[in-house]
Amino acid sequence: MIYGGIEAGGTKFICAIGNEDGEIIEQIQIPTTSPKETMQEVISFFRQFTLGAIGIGSFGPCDINPKSDTYGCITSTPKKLWRDYSILGALKGEFEVPIIFNTDVNVAALAETKLGAAKGLDSCLYITVGTGIGAGAVVNGQLLQGLSHPEMGHIIVRRHPDDVYEGKCPYHGDCLEGLAAGPAIGDRWGKEASQLASRLDVWELQAFYIAQALMHYILILSPKKIILGGGVMKQKQVFSLIYNKLSELLNSYIDLPELSTYPHKYIVSPGLGDRAGIIGALILAQQGYHKKIHS
Amino acid sequence: MIYGGIEAGGTKFICAIGNEDGEIIEQIQIPTTSPKETMQEVISFFRQFTLGAIGIGSFGPCDINPKSDTYGCITSTPKKLWRDYSILGALKGEFEVPIIFNTDVNVAALAETKLGAAKGLDSCLYITVGTGIGAGAVVNGQLLQGLSHPEMGHIIVRRHPDDVYEGKCPYHGDCLEGLAAGPAIGDRWGKEASQLASRLDVWELQAFYIAQALMHYILILSPKKIILGGGVMKQKQVFSLIYNKLSELLNSYIDLPELSTYPHKYIVSPGLGDRAGIIGALILAQQGYHKKIHS
Ligand SMILES: Nc1ncnc2c1ncn2[C@@H]1O[C@H](COP(=O)(O)OP(=O)(O)O)[C@@H](O)[C@H]1O
Ligand SMILES: Nc1ncnc2c1ncn2[C@@H]1O[C@H](COP(=O)(O)OP(=O)(O)O)[C@@H](O)[C@H]1O
Ligand SMILES: [Zn+2]
Ligand SMILES: [Zn+2]
Repeated sequence: MIYGGIEAGGTKFICAIGNEDGEIIEQIQIPTTSPKETMQEVISFFRQFTLGAIGIGSFGPCDINPKSDTYGCITSTPKKLWRDYSILGALKGEFEVPIIFNTDVNVAALAETKLGAAKGLDSCLYITVGTGIGAGAVVNGQLLQGLSHPEMGHIIVRRHPDDVYEGKCPYHGDCLEGLAAGPAIGDRWGKEASQLASRLDVWELQAFYIAQALMHYILILSPKKIILGGGVMKQKQVFSLIYNKLSELLNSYIDLPELSTYPHKYIVSPGLGDRAGIIGALILAQQGYHKKIHS
Repeated sequence: MIYGGIEAGGTKFICAIGNEDGEIIEQIQIPTTSPKETMQEVISFFRQFTLGAIGIGSFGPCDINPKSDTYGCITSTPKKLWRDYSILGALKGEFEVPIIFNTDVNVAALAETKLGAAKGLDSCLYITVGTGIGAGAVVNGQLLQGLSHPEMGHIIVRRHPDDVYEGKCPYHGDCLEGLAAGPAIGDRWGKEASQLASRLDVWELQAFYIAQALMHYILILSPKKIILGGGVMKQKQVFSLIYNKLSELLNSYIDLPELSTYPHKYIVSPGLGDRAGIIGALILAQQGYHKKIHS
């Protein structure tokens, strides 16, 4: 059996066809323009194949509760054209197979526990620091889901006293995402984050904010592995700065070797690199298919 | 069958005998002195009964991982006599029944989902604001447990600009617990928290901190119900102040009626009052017994 996966992002949609082993057979990339235009291209691509199911990892906030009337819809995004748009609805009319919808970071967390850096664990946290900051978690072997999906990028962090940048989140101003996502870094320092590799002060400040976030995630969720992905985390030098700041912040309150002795094994880059999201969408499809044939 | 439950606290141990319906048949209270003295009284009490199992909800930090060598031990507590002491170990030698060990707040969360304010839900967060601040969570019907148990009381909050109090946490100074637990309130205002009921400024500041914490818990865990217990939360007037602050902070980013329309149904007092902890310990015992006879 083959499966369809969609990583629905704010700038691009990645569509892929995968096999039973989570390997990608074919893949395309579609720019995120209007829902109509983008989804038309998605549909044309998948029409070429006979799929067992389709899995979607979407940008958010979105409704991932299968029991809800608005399951599969984008909700309060700043991208006006996509607000209240049902990605699931657009596909349902076209394909008579199970279609499963979740967040981009949730499916990435799923992929990392099945095939990536958290392979074999029943718990992991996947964080992306890119255009936005978001995270998905696997807890007791299942995706974390409650009243809504987590929105971990919008937590409040204590500001660095020397940081006068006002913050870029349209909802909260200087929440974590507003201070530490790629666009905030670019704005604050007047240069694209990727062009700032040699600037120690940039990454010290970044570590100051990310370490606070990790402290919150650890104290609240206690994941067995933390995976830090997204464009900004390609600056590998920031990892050791984060370990140091986090250890200062926790001040040995949580007395575990993962934190004191080998943080470099506990807080890591994605094992699947940039493909965690799309592979996760394919795993979601696969799970949906097997659930259907066993029911 | 009857069961034994222990709510092991920093100032007192509550021991109870409960029946299959989670009803308490008999209960005593023992002051927390030295481990030897306190545990001797605990043991004498339980010796009077023939129990199916014993459940413990303990203060922490402690080791609640059944696979660990130090399962059932208190770990890095400021209470020196109890550091590295095995509560489970003290009982194991005396009683030949399953003994299950977890945190006080975890068992309270369990009790509230089985019999209290979150009855029927598969997800809830139980927070205590008392001598310390702690929280336990049920996620997908199971207690949240990862690398360690959560330690949600020690998250960092943004300080109120007018608050000059230095904070009381021995590990972090002005973390949430250091700023907003009962002893911090007493210190800051020079009077026991329970004597400050009429002081609006006290509870406005308290709501300022607790709302930030709830924002974090909601964005990271997304519980289906939030239960706020502990001595300090007996000041019921603080609930509506918290709803207001939380709504300001979230700024409609999470667009759910639980947050916008009926926070008073979403963020509530414990359905089991002060008995959530001890009833949770009894439920733990019951689960341990039934697991044993079915294995
Ligand atoms: N090598 C890099 N170093 C630092 N920042 C980068 C790098 N590559 C991309 N970024 C930043 O990451 C953001 C894009 O994040 P990315 O994870 O690639 O996409 P998205 O979040 O949109 O899915 C941009 O703000 C960009 O400046
Ligand atoms: N009615 C009340 N109003 C405000 N604070 C209270 C009240 N009762 C107790 N407290 C505070 O709560 C703390 C004790 O918390 P409690 O939950 O009763 O016990 P513990 O946390 O030790 O298990 C003390 O700091 C006390 O000042
Ligand atoms: Zn925000
Ligand atoms: Zn602390």
